[in-house]
Parts: sequence; structure tokens; C-alpha cells
Amino acid sequence: MLSKTKVKYIQSLGHKKRRDEEQVFIAEGPKIVSELLLEPDMKVIEIFALAEWLLQNPLPANIPRLIVTEEELEKITQLSTPNKVMAIFQQPKAIVDIITKDKWVLLLDGIQDPGNMGTIIRIADWFGIKQIICSHECASIYNTKVIQSSMASIARVEVLVTDLLPWINQHADCNYYAASLEGKDLTSMGKLKKGIIMIGNESKGLNPSLLAKANILITIPRIGKAESLNASVATGIILSHLV
Amino acid sequence: MLSKTKVKYIQSLGHKKRRDEEQVFIAEGPKIVSELLLEPDMKVIEIFALAEWLLQNPLPANIPRLIVTEEELEKITQLSTPNKVMAIFQQPKAIVDIITKDKWVLLLDGIQDPGNMGTIIRIADWFGIKQIICSHECASIYNTKVIQSSMASIARVEVLVTDLLPWINQHADCNYYAASLEGKDLTSMGKLKKGIIMIGNESKGLNPSLLAKANILITIPRIGKAESLNASVATGIILSHLV
Repeated sequence: MLSKTKVKYIQSLGHKKRRDEEQVFIAEGPKIVSELLLEPDMKVIEIFALAEWLLQNPLPANIPRLIVTEEELEKITQLSTPNKVMAIFQQPKAIVDIITKDKWVLLLDGIQDPGNMGTIIRIADWFGIKQIICSHECASIYNTKVIQSSMASIARVEVLVTDLLPWINQHADCNYYAASLEGKDLTSMGKLKKGIIMIGNESKGLNPSLLAKANILITIPRIGKAESLNASVATGIILSHLV
Repeated sequence: MLSKTKVKYIQSLGHKKRRDEEQVFIAEGPKIVSELLLEPDMKVIEIFALAEWLLQNPLPANIPRLIVTEEELEKITQLSTPNKVMAIFQQPKAIVDIITKDKWVLLLDGIQDPGNMGTIIRIADWFGIKQIICSHECASIYNTKVIQSSMASIARVEVLVTDLLPWINQHADCNYYAASLEGKDLTSMGKLKKGIIMIGNESKGLNPSLLAKANILITIPRIGKAESLNASVATGIILSHLV
């Protein structure tokens, strides 16, 4: 049975501050929990699951687990509908710095929608990008909805949250690519040097002080009339052409 | 003041059946309402807005409008947080058929997430695709969240909801492109004949009976380890290479 203290503790992990103090995050639902359990670098702290899920998913003996009822799961879920299993994982160790030499790296400025944030992490993983730099204004990468849309890619992509402008100033020798309406046609750019791809906020785009640091402006050619593309869709399109 | 009857009426439009009976849909928030009002083919039925919004957005005299309070807007909103203005628009006339000759057309099989559905409509609009065919299992195109993520592109893209297999059988002379893990590399396909691009359900992909109708299989090259890409991101990537 789930104690009141445990319920309160899990609910408190809905807050970024508490998650960071405890250095943990929550994953929910059979698909993502199973995938994260398969990742060698992920350390699971505890699993809360329906009896049926535990029967179908035998766990190594050393993993703490608690059988819960549907009602209990409903109390601790951070999603609109609970889904059989919830797990608390340890946050991966913070990365010290980004390796820019001969790598593609994503730099995200204020991606606020957790769905977009998770989707971008998943896209990075698809295209083999192993490191992402985020501004403090981005959705918390350990927000349950981010974890959900990242589809376990969070286990394979490292994320550094930092002040972007000082970071860029310290890495002035890199190529900075930014999407802009007046850049070069993305579909005809030919071979490119690896570098940092900058993606801006969903409605405001890149902060002008960051945009000023870009030395290569790229444009996704528009044929029709939509005013803009969703930030994660734009990221996917850019990576599919550059990487 | 908003009458009880009106509140009930607006709330009832949250249901697809009622929206289709009344041949209307709801748009919410300043950005999308303003954009839709600028579209010559969109007919607005009534606007419910805060006094401040109406002051800042003078409307032609013939548009029915009602000043509402924040509390009233909260009663009628279909979003988690109401946003200054809500408008009822007439649904565009149903299209009779899809023009396949020398056009790119999207065919959607069971795109269930309203956010994905709206984002795909917006992507189609960006790439100049004017018509989409959907299965009955797709999210309703007049769902408020679809309208929201389509960002007014719904005014510029026609959508036909129909049984896909009979439709394909009646249009057997078209090229059908489908994304598959064992297709041709999308990034090296060269010049292509226009045709129908098939996009499948978020988790199950294309129905096998539809996949069997595809005569060109395409693959988005994967460099990393993510198992799949989000349906709308995949659509964006495919269109950016083919169209």
C-alpha cells in the first residue's frame, strides 16, 4: 500500500525545484518505463505498478517496486490519465561541457512547450545528435510531459542548461546556424561544416542577441501561406537536410 | 451578458456531432481569431470577447459580437485557459473530390492527436499543399485543439474525410508514397512525380491494407537510436525533401 508520505513525496516531484533537489525524475506508462529500464546508464529508484504490469514485466530482484491499485496510481500520476506504471529514476549526472569539435549540437532558446521540448530531444536522438544546450527559459527536461514526448531519448541525449550568451562567447570559434526568413535556401546548401544549430522560442523565435551570433542563416523554403512552422517540425526539417 | 442557453449551446459545440449538425467550429485566442477574420472565405457567426479585445480590434458593423467577462469566457472555453476572445465560424463547404493531377496531396490514416493533426495541416499549408484526405479515425478537423495548432491554415487547406481504401481504388492511377523503414533514402531520391503522400497513425503507422497500395516506399535516414519520429515531424521532413 502506498503511504500518505510517499504520495506527498511523489506529488512534490511535480515541481522542478524538488526534482532537482532530489536529483530524480518521473516516467509514466509501460512503453517509456520499459525502454528506460533497458538503458544501461539509467538508474531506477522505485517502481509503482499495477499487479498485472508487474506480472507481465518481471524485474530484477534488486529493483524496489510497489504494487498499487488504479486508485492509488490516479493519486500520484502527473498525466491526465494514469497508465499502469510509474517509475522514479535518478537524473543522469550533469554534463560538464559540450563537445563542439566535429559534432552537430542543438542550442535551444526558450522552447517552452514540454511536448515540443521532448519531441526535439527525440529528433536529436534520431539524427545522432548527442548533446543539447538549453537556456533556463526552456521547459524543464525532467518535466513528466517532456520525458513522455522524448520517448526515452532522454537516456541517450545529454542536455546542458546554461546562460546561452556567455556560453557562445566562450565558444566563439564554432559555426552557428540559425533559421531565419532571409537566410540561404536549406535545400540547396551543399556540404557544411559541423556546428551549432540554434532554435528559438515558439512564438518569439531566437533572442536578437543570440541571432546576432549566427554566422550562417538558413531558410526552410515556403511554398504556401502558413506564417510559420512548429519549432519541433522546423528542427526535424533542418536536421534532415544538414546532418 | 451571456445567457444560459448560449452557454449551453457553445459548450455543446465541444462535440463533433453537434458541430457538424450546426456546420460550425470554434476558434479561441487573439492570434487565431484575428487571422481567420482576415480570410476572405471564412464566415464568422458570432464573437465573444473581453471589452479590451474589442476595443483593440474594431470589427465591421455586420459581425455579431458580445462583450463577456473573464468568468463568462471561462465557462465557454474549450481550452485549459481562456484567452480574451472566442469566435464561432461557419465550416467551409465540404469538398467534392481531391484534384490529383499534377498536385501533391496528403493522405492521413488515423492521426489521433489533435495537436499532430493541426500541425500537419499547418505543414501542408507551408509547403503549398491545398488538399488533404483523412480517414474517419483521424481527430476531427474542427476540434478546437486542431484549429489551435493549425494556426489558421485550416482556412487555406481543404480536408476530405472519407474511407481511404475505396478512395484509393478509385484513384489507382496516382503515385502513392509511404514512409517505411525499408524504403529508398529520402535524401537521395532526386526528381519525383507528384502524387499522394501517405502518413500513418502515431503508434501503429499505416494500416497494412493501405501500405500495400503504396508504389514508392521512402525512408527518413536514421543516424542515432530513437525508435521513431513524431508523425507531424516526419510529415514535415518528407515534404521538405519531396515538394
